[in-house]
Amino acid sequence: MENLFIAKVGGNLIDDEAGLAAFLDAFAQINGRKILIHGGGKMATELAHTLGLETQMVNGRRITSKEMLKVVTMVYAGLINKTIVSGLQARSCNALGVTGADANLMLAHKRAHAEIDYGWVGDIDHVDSAALVHFLNSGATPVVAPLTHDGRGNMLNTNADTIAATLARALHAYYHTSLVFCFDKKGVLASNHEDEVIPRLTFAEYRRLREAGVISKGMLPKLENAFAALQAGVTSIIICHASQLLPALQEDGCGTRLSL
Amino acid sequence: MENLFIAKVGGNLIDDEAGLAAFLDAFAQINGRKILIHGGGKMATELAHTLGLETQMVNGRRITSKEMLKVVTMVYAGLINKTIVSGLQARSCNALGVTGADANLMLAHKRAHAEIDYGWVGDIDHVDSAALVHFLNSGATPVVAPLTHDGRGNMLNTNADTIAATLARALHAYYHTSLVFCFDKKGVLASNHEDEVIPRLTFAEYRRLREAGVISKGMLPKLENAFAALQAGVTSIIICHASQLLPALQEDGCGTRLSL
Repeated sequence: MENLFIAKVGGNLIDDEAGLAAFLDAFAQINGRKILIHGGGKMATELAHTLGLETQMVNGRRITSKEMLKVVTMVYAGLINKTIVSGLQARSCNALGVTGADANLMLAHKRAHAEIDYGWVGDIDHVDSAALVHFLNSGATPVVAPLTHDGRGNMLNTNADTIAATLARALHAYYHTSLVFCFDKKGVLASNHEDEVIPRLTFAEYRRLREAGVISKGMLPKLENAFAALQAGVTSIIICHASQLLPALQEDGCGTRLSL
Repeated sequence: MENLFIAKVGGNLIDDEAGLAAFLDAFAQINGRKILIHGGGKMATELAHTLGLETQMVNGRRITSKEMLKVVTMVYAGLINKTIVSGLQARSCNALGVTGADANLMLAHKRAHAEIDYGWVGDIDHVDSAALVHFLNSGATPVVAPLTHDGRGNMLNTNADTIAATLARALHAYYHTSLVFCFDKKGVLASNHEDEVIPRLTFAEYRRLREAGVISKGMLPKLENAFAALQAGVTSIIICHASQLLPALQEDGCGTRLSL
């Protein structure tokens, strides 16, 4: 079985030209089959604000109105995706930018919720693993924007962490799959101190820290997605700073390693 | 040799929901290998205007500043491309949205001009025909946004008619290639009357009408590109209204057929 490396990076990295360049340098150096999933970031919120659309939040979650969907489609699938794709091509990495609509890679449904209308937000129903395998085996590196589609002509806004974990789960039947979540902290933290990184985190320890309130709200969905992927058979999952991708991949490297 | 059908449609069609739906219905019905190239349209100009960027024109040509490049990347590769891709997926056509950066499909250089700095505008140097053939043979229908890249990390704004003709020229070695330019007129007109369509136009007749001033400025680059593709071996070229794609493809159908 071949190896597959999947990395997820936040969309905010695009705002940081030097940080993005360093990340792409590192990602391009990883040999073999790989996929990059990028998030959205502040750029969509800023563009929406400039266009007079206010970002509506309910219970800490963003509501995607029809107009906001247009903005995120422009920013995620257009500006962020093509900045990364052209940047990787300049580094001899044969990037192919996609959303879930392209080649029907990720089919989703508009989220139904009894009380809250999240708008044009998608929960993934099906991943076309064969199409992804076909791209990977042809030497392409898919660069995935956080958008899916409903098969009825609508794009849907979808969380990038969820996409990363879902793709890892769908592809581990074909490859020894490693998943790295890159973000703006050095790993899962044991306290408020930025340097107190937990090097190894088991599911039992995660539940304990979650109940003790040590692991903060923002980390919860990321870790829930990650442990679910691990339980489904994904070989290895690391959470690290975007500037430490290569050191994190070394044996006993930096960041947080998850295990069951 | 298999057949390949390439259609180019203007980006303005996106503004016309019913027109777009009818066009996608027709395009999806065409059997076999096919590629759709879409233009940019007014949406980018409108978004730029809203963002306080004025569209700068020199000698009737748009100048693409760094900020304008961001806008066209958002609108072309993001909103327009994904609207078309999700629309085709809803019609069981396995669309795959790409720019020239994706899979390194079209490598270009920033246009150099002695007097005018066109900004981030690209002239195509190389098409990766093998990558396109690979996509086509896997059953995907590439949907191409009018953007290329320079291999150094920059996207470049590139005319959609030129892309359509260039792809047809690159692919006619692999397929019997037909190219249809769809726009907002019924074909090449012999006068100012919208209904006076020239059914067949030879290169000699084109030159005569160009010298007589009958064929107007906007049509010239489209026809120059089209005749160059015909001279390079492209099997058939038709110019027709976007609402008449299927009737135009019938023998002696509507629109204008070009020949040498």
